[in-house]
Amino acid sequence: MRFSPLLDQLIEALRCLPGVGPKTAQRMALQLLTRGRDNGKRLAQSLTDAMHHIGHCQQCRIFSETPVCEICSSLHRDCAVLCIVENPVDVSVIEQTSSFRGKYFVLLGHLSPLDGIGPEELGMSKLKTRMENGELQEIIIATNPTVEGEATAHYISEMARGVEVKVTRIARGVALGSELEYIDANTLAHALVGREEI
Amino acid sequence: MRFSPLLDQLIEALRCLPGVGPKTAQRMALQLLTRGRDNGKRLAQSLTDAMHHIGHCQQCRIFSETPVCEICSSLHRDCAVLCIVENPVDVSVIEQTSSFRGKYFVLLGHLSPLDGIGPEELGMSKLKTRMENGELQEIIIATNPTVEGEATAHYISEMARGVEVKVTRIARGVALGSELEYIDANTLAHALVGREEI
Repeated sequence: MRFSPLLDQLIEALRCLPGVGPKTAQRMALQLLTRGRDNGKRLAQSLTDAMHHIGHCQQCRIFSETPVCEICSSLHRDCAVLCIVENPVDVSVIEQTSSFRGKYFVLLGHLSPLDGIGPEELGMSKLKTRMENGELQEIIIATNPTVEGEATAHYISEMARGVEVKVTRIARGVALGSELEYIDANTLAHALVGREEI
Repeated sequence: MRFSPLLDQLIEALRCLPGVGPKTAQRMALQLLTRGRDNGKRLAQSLTDAMHHIGHCQQCRIFSETPVCEICSSLHRDCAVLCIVENPVDVSVIEQTSSFRGKYFVLLGHLSPLDGIGPEELGMSKLKTRMENGELQEIIIATNPTVEGEATAHYISEMARGVEVKVTRIARGVALGSELEYIDANTLAHALVGREEI
């Protein structure tokens, strides 16, 4: 059954959100109309503002409505260390650890030739320029430990070959609180190879 | 960690949607920004339209942007049978069965004195007027088979006492495809009491 045209249109539009199917979209629309019209209007306004005004930081490519983001323009962060991540949310999770005080570079994806995502889409030329300007001492590659993430990491390390800069990769090994019994062989192999003296 | 102010604002605003926590809201916002700006703008527009222009049908109280909804204004439906439901979505599920051709009345909730929802909030006076205008022959009470739904059903049946109209309640019994082993005692008791001759 169809509701009124505007309501059907809202339900359809809500399905663009990740993880929202027809049933959830219907529930969301009806709940907003029943007891959340002010919230709905506020959400509409926030969406409009965000979609129109949020761009990318000129330096690290993270989402930002200012030309240079807060982290890149901070004077309290170490300009000599650059951490390269795939997604903006990765910056968020690394910041939560409070154990990194350098700057970031966000690729906004990983190499995926079949999807038409090559070095240019990931801002590699911008990254290259940044590597060559002599300010960097270390690059930490923190792409995801997936096949695509590893390939992207490999590409970046190759790109850094001619440049006088230390290139590191975040450690791959066993996660804290996990049990060896349930860890996959590849991870365990990495943990053994990367063992540290205590 | 906080993102840019507009992005934080969008993440916060998305949390008004039912079932959306901080992590999901963050994922939604980032995905819309990364590869769904047009969808995001369309959603904002649909939300604005819906929140401002969708009201309630004057006759059945369902959501509608026209004064009288499609079902209420249809000439092909039986005006003598009125099905009373709690929520707009209930109209949708009953319509999907294709086994009801009468009209609806949507309470938009159930009696819940503690939440300040009394007969007036549920449009009982409008329902009373409708019962008394002589057009109705049968009222089917299809409120949910919960404690509140049953209480609301009881209230409506009491209200219909003085009126010349047949009042029925949807059958409570075992669901098709279920197994007796797993059915609760109350439902089974209802199924026994409401047994039908075959």
